[in-house]
Amino acid sequence: MLSIAEANEIVQGSISTLDSIDVDLFAATGYVLAEDITAKEPLPPFPASIKDGYAVRSADGAGEYDVDFEQLAGSAPGSLNEGKVAYITTGAPLPDGADAVVQVENTEDLTGPSGSQQRVKIVKAAKGPGDDVRAVGSDIQAGEVVLPEGSVIGAAEVGLLATVGAAKLRVYRKPVVGVLSTGDELVEPGEQHLGPGQIRDANRLMLASAASTSGCEVIDLGIARDTVEDTEAKLQLAESKGVDVLLTSGGVSMGNKDFIKGILERKGKVHFGRVRMKPGKPLTFATIDASGSRKAMTVFGLPGNPVSSIVTYNLVCLPALRKLSGHQEPGLRRVDARTQTAIKLDAERPEYHRVSLSWHRAGGGAEFAASSTGGQISSRLLSMRSANALLELPAAQGVLPAGSVVSALLIGDLGGMPVLEDLPMIMPLKN
Amino acid sequence: MLSIAEANEIVQGSISTLDSIDVDLFAATGYVLAEDITAKEPLPPFPASIKDGYAVRSADGAGEYDVDFEQLAGSAPGSLNEGKVAYITTGAPLPDGADAVVQVENTEDLTGPSGSQQRVKIVKAAKGPGDDVRAVGSDIQAGEVVLPEGSVIGAAEVGLLATVGAAKLRVYRKPVVGVLSTGDELVEPGEQHLGPGQIRDANRLMLASAASTSGCEVIDLGIARDTVEDTEAKLQLAESKGVDVLLTSGGVSMGNKDFIKGILERKGKVHFGRVRMKPGKPLTFATIDASGSRKAMTVFGLPGNPVSSIVTYNLVCLPALRKLSGHQEPGLRRVDARTQTAIKLDAERPEYHRVSLSWHRAGGGAEFAASSTGGQISSRLLSMRSANALLELPAAQGVLPAGSVVSALLIGDLGGMPVLEDLPMIMPLKN
Ligand SMILES: [Mg+2]
Ligand SMILES: [Mg+2]
Repeated sequence: MLSIAEANEIVQGSISTLDSIDVDLFAATGYVLAEDITAKEPLPPFPASIKDGYAVRSADGAGEYDVDFEQLAGSAPGSLNEGKVAYITTGAPLPDGADAVVQVENTEDLTGPSGSQQRVKIVKAAKGPGDDVRAVGSDIQAGEVVLPEGSVIGAAEVGLLATVGAAKLRVYRKPVVGVLSTGDELVEPGEQHLGPGQIRDANRLMLASAASTSGCEVIDLGIARDTVEDTEAKLQLAESKGVDVLLTSGGVSMGNKDFIKGILERKGKVHFGRVRMKPGKPLTFATIDASGSRKAMTVFGLPGNPVSSIVTYNLVCLPALRKLSGHQEPGLRRVDARTQTAIKLDAERPEYHRVSLSWHRAGGGAEFAASSTGGQISSRLLSMRSANALLELPAAQGVLPAGSVVSALLIGDLGGMPVLEDLPMIMPLKN
Repeated sequence: MLSIAEANEIVQGSISTLDSIDVDLFAATGYVLAEDITAKEPLPPFPASIKDGYAVRSADGAGEYDVDFEQLAGSAPGSLNEGKVAYITTGAPLPDGADAVVQVENTEDLTGPSGSQQRVKIVKAAKGPGDDVRAVGSDIQAGEVVLPEGSVIGAAEVGLLATVGAAKLRVYRKPVVGVLSTGDELVEPGEQHLGPGQIRDANRLMLASAASTSGCEVIDLGIARDTVEDTEAKLQLAESKGVDVLLTSGGVSMGNKDFIKGILERKGKVHFGRVRMKPGKPLTFATIDASGSRKAMTVFGLPGNPVSSIVTYNLVCLPALRKLSGHQEPGLRRVDARTQTAIKLDAERPEYHRVSLSWHRAGGGAEFAASSTGGQISSRLLSMRSANALLELPAAQGVLPAGSVVSALLIGDLGGMPVLEDLPMIMPLKN
């Protein structure tokens, strides 16, 4: 049976980055750039004051001066007369003739009653030419690539793009994700009365939430009942709605109502149908080629147990969505962490054990502490509550003792990890 | 002058979590729960099969049996006749009379030609009562709080909420954030021709991107020109648009066109106007009380330099937005990291040095490696490109040598951190 690493290799090798689209900078956050962005002009485009103060000829030194004029931000540079200084604000262009700025804190206003000539005493002179002036191109040079193709656009990147005038950009399209649950036992989450044998559908909304967090448009395809006809109809609905990636859950086990794999074999290519992992063994991956007006579709048949479905989503589907969206490093990130309790290993399958990582300082060092989220049976979704990582436990006999260091795959934002009580607000430096 | 820790204490003490609203579960991702969510029924609500296979009386043991009926997922439990077994699918209720399940892999189908009585050989018997059966309430007990007030709703939480039928929830409202830039030098990002003394406005879109990443609704208030009248008009516009948190940038320095602080002093309470930090000294924080139909408004006057504005946003405004949104631990998370290059310290002010963290294994240990993003002058937004953390450097003389361990505040998702080449796909266990 395939390992998760092998499964990911097959998935990543079977899909390609989607086509690119134009977006407004205001809506570009989260996309991946499909073009290099180059600065057309230098930044600053003119020698700019770093401070509020006085533009001077640095050779003139300390002393008392007439204020020639005010050089405000946003105005064209004036021309400074000999023996005078100009009042200047932060970001204003340096007047012709000036070569430095003296900040207002180093001056004294000598101006008399209202209406009289403005005069100032330079108490502490500029150190030399260029003092408190940003030279042309010192932040960004003309022709410089400020963001290469493949950059993920976050807030800082939006700022850079605004700076260089990239108000419209070419980015990779994000996949349209369809979510579909299967099973006669499922009712809608809003259903308050459960009939005999019924449970509420958790997977569809959970997977929709996960995919939308990655910025994908999500299409709710509802629940397929346990007949070949209904399951096929839902797959056709996905195609007609322009779904790029279909996430189904359930219907991939050994039961006589598990139709997904058979239908996918008839419609496209099933690359694999089982993975050696716990939880999540019956993970199915298929591709359906484009034909006529129909787009190509990537299908993941996830297990029906909610934990299996969200764990396999994170391990395999999320990297696939990232690759389709243009990410150059689509895989989950790996850190190491110390286990806080003993963990029984599975002799047959590598286990992805849900933990909550937090940063822990002890003794002379610091490390991630991994707290198990408790009972790991694949139906127990409480084991995913506030999990931000999956420990990679090998298939082996016996028990992994508390205090072991294990690699962990990040599945949550550590910006929200639990804060341990002993964490000081400001940490002294350590060498 | 205040430290960042003191500034945060003032801000966090001056604001309160916003009121709560009802949302549909489908749109609840990213919100903080404003109520405890309790399971009304146990999960599973009936003894449920974990496998596809045969429901048996475990005492009957191995042997050949008639198949009494099919117990499918979603159907009411049948009643198993003595000396027989029932075919059962994953998630189906255990029939009355049965007490265990034997998975199909441990059986042999003995059924003859189509139409004849279904018969099966149990090759490997169930270990005892309860084998491959989920007991009622084994995943969630009736009356159990599955998510307490204050929980941040991610994908797994959406799944849990769906499971217990919480299709509508009470969550804390997210702040409406207004973004406003100030300065006569600014033109829109789409402007292709820069006049003398002009630059493009980067801060407004950058802050809008940052706030929208936190799930806030963002209102673009445009650019205020350097007059008291225009600046006041923009503040009134913010109030009339129902802004909870106003983020302005620029206009908070020592120049004679820096009006923000004075206007805020007339309209509300300015709590502080400077913070001892680099970059970002002229950070202003004010609150304006509610009056009549006007909501209360929290105002952050951020510095005009783009790096100062996004760094102060992360250090002070983001924790404020999180507190308003109901987060119980609104502060940035702190880890420790080893510097890769020597860093010159600032003798006067603690510096928040932008770095890119990645996970590094070397020798017997593993740690975060912190790579500086280069020149740290506050106008150079390139120093924020792909930064995911801020090193907390103390105010001190001299140079911090390469290889020092320093605390770092997370400002980006480590799920996208750079992958070092030496990172193996599967890490062997270490003790
Ligand atoms: Mg099923
Ligand atoms: Mg200004």
